[in-house]
Amino acid sequence: MAANRIHNFNAGPAALPLSVLEEIQESFLNFKGSGMSITEISHRSKWFDDVINDAVTRTKRLLNLGKNFHVLFIQGGASLQFCMIPMNLLPDDRSADYVDTGTWSSKAIKEAQIQGKSVKVVASSADKNYTYIPKDIQFCDDAAYVHITSNNTIKGTQWAKFPVTNGIPLFADMSSDIMSRPFDPAPFGLIYAGAQKNIGPAGVCMVIIRDDMLRRIPENLPTMLNYTTYVSENSLYNTPPCFAIYTVQLVLKWLEDTIGGLEKMEALNQEKAGLLYEFLDSSEFYRTTAEPESRSLMNITFRLPDEDLEKRFVAKALKNELGGLKGHSSVGGCRASIYNATTLAAVKALIDFMMNFESKFD
Amino acid sequence: MAANRIHNFNAGPAALPLSVLEEIQESFLNFKGSGMSITEISHRSKWFDDVINDAVTRTKRLLNLGKNFHVLFIQGGASLQFCMIPMNLLPDDRSADYVDTGTWSSKAIKEAQIQGKSVKVVASSADKNYTYIPKDIQFCDDAAYVHITSNNTIKGTQWAKFPVTNGIPLFADMSSDIMSRPFDPAPFGLIYAGAQKNIGPAGVCMVIIRDDMLRRIPENLPTMLNYTTYVSENSLYNTPPCFAIYTVQLVLKWLEDTIGGLEKMEALNQEKAGLLYEFLDSSEFYRTTAEPESRSLMNITFRLPDEDLEKRFVAKALKNELGGLKGHSSVGGCRASIYNATTLAAVKALIDFMMNFESKFD
Repeated sequence: MAANRIHNFNAGPAALPLSVLEEIQESFLNFKGSGMSITEISHRSKWFDDVINDAVTRTKRLLNLGKNFHVLFIQGGASLQFCMIPMNLLPDDRSADYVDTGTWSSKAIKEAQIQGKSVKVVASSADKNYTYIPKDIQFCDDAAYVHITSNNTIKGTQWAKFPVTNGIPLFADMSSDIMSRPFDPAPFGLIYAGAQKNIGPAGVCMVIIRDDMLRRIPENLPTMLNYTTYVSENSLYNTPPCFAIYTVQLVLKWLEDTIGGLEKMEALNQEKAGLLYEFLDSSEFYRTTAEPESRSLMNITFRLPDEDLEKRFVAKALKNELGGLKGHSSVGGCRASIYNATTLAAVKALIDFMMNFESKFD
Repeated sequence: MAANRIHNFNAGPAALPLSVLEEIQESFLNFKGSGMSITEISHRSKWFDDVINDAVTRTKRLLNLGKNFHVLFIQGGASLQFCMIPMNLLPDDRSADYVDTGTWSSKAIKEAQIQGKSVKVVASSADKNYTYIPKDIQFCDDAAYVHITSNNTIKGTQWAKFPVTNGIPLFADMSSDIMSRPFDPAPFGLIYAGAQKNIGPAGVCMVIIRDDMLRRIPENLPTMLNYTTYVSENSLYNTPPCFAIYTVQLVLKWLEDTIGGLEKMEALNQEKAGLLYEFLDSSEFYRTTAEPESRSLMNITFRLPDEDLEKRFVAKALKNELGGLKGHSSVGGCRASIYNATTLAAVKALIDFMMNFESKFD
């Protein structure tokens, strides 16, 4: 069944665990003996209740969330969250602190400003082309929240440790590193993650919101843009993206039952990224772009001596069944995205190829 | 492969053509020779461009849309459209006419009112529990648009002919009957349809917008809530719900290549609904709930002599591999949803079962 699959280094949508894909495929015409596809069952059925409830329970267990957190599934991706967050949680008479570490942070800031909300950019790494994560940030004591992007897919940077906000609720776009490592959820007021990198296919965004945040939500928001709607209806106010949620559930099951939880996932991610950075650091031919302290374990960005070589590298890699290595169009270069589902074997195959490619041009 | 499938009369998510499901299943680990699943390929790839462009082209061809229409794919279902429509297309100094034919119309009205927009309910069938479609409606000459719900899944009513609005742009929620019959698109300023009934799985809403409507859109809307974003980026501003759009593309291909277009689809839908209504009208045991002139070809609602019998009917039907016959929780009773993908054979099997069930209790 798995014949002719390539090693997939896409930045998102990205590789999914093969066992998850195989389970979906096998049951696709008849889900759990229902006589229907997962795409054909009612979202009001016992079958789907089991799916969404299991996804919520596993998320709480994997992230060690207290009872004061709600796990929601919302459509529109992280991009819709950029606007829903200030709409729901930034009152007109307050201001929020944002840290700008690149494209996605910048978009989050812009969507707050479009709504006329007050936003302070308290730190930015724009001065060095977003190649690092700012340190020693002074937050405003009265900030409604602090917003960060935990991992930056385009520039290949990642917060190794989350900033200490002294009681100000921390909000994080974790689209590209959620479930890649354990962390203490207590300081977080809100976490959100488009599923299509580490936990599922495109078409659903996981939103984790702390109970006390709900009190800030103003009256008279459109129903579908109000977090309370999703909290009160277990994300089932209207028809949810059933297939995407189902796939997320299977990925979470794989994380718990096959991988063994987030400590083990992190160790594996450290090993994969460690091998690749070690190789890159030892090479004169390839060079990394992010500052060492700020390097991402998920998206490893690198350059070759010139753009022509980069094009040849990406094309030749694909011929060798290594896909998705082109850098983001806004920055060029190369990028290997090695999310949870990318195997150690894939990383080793990539390094072998890179050594071989280098040996012919160096 | 198709063993143990049931006849699926779900109201939505609903039955999909078996050949579509089989194609998804077969290619699920390796889409078009990419070596990746459709859920793992980049939305910026040639593969996905082909998918979305084909879905747009087929929609334009099937609905006979002129060049002045844009076909968009937006997340959040019809429920998000209830709020996006007035936000984008109802200027603060104007009013819109809404026809209230039940739950979904009522929600559309409510979401306009939540935003403080001016809405006139120019006609309603609330007086008879939404069992009919109003006729001879007087629209306001200066209405920004006229909004209708073309088919009402809960009450089993449908506009047999669309109202004449004399140049006022007609807006329609066609979630439950899009692509079930041909119609003249010229009077329409906007058409929207959650995919999960007639054209695909849950998780994507098709929005068709006429070019002149775009001029109404105010500045400074959040990017993800602005129709212009989807028009300028071919629905690819952010990561779209790739799997849902792919499934829609396959359903549209089935409609064109296997069914032969909307005239043929309508004839088949007429035949299916005709058989079922004919049987219901001939029975003293079952009775329909919608007024004959307003009956839906998609959702056939009916009652049995009492609620206990209805429960036994639904349960026994499922044992006979006929699923999804329970009426909507807000109204009770029974409902057979017979969208495009429900086969004539399924309808005949249902009638056979109903005759048999009646004979034991009559």
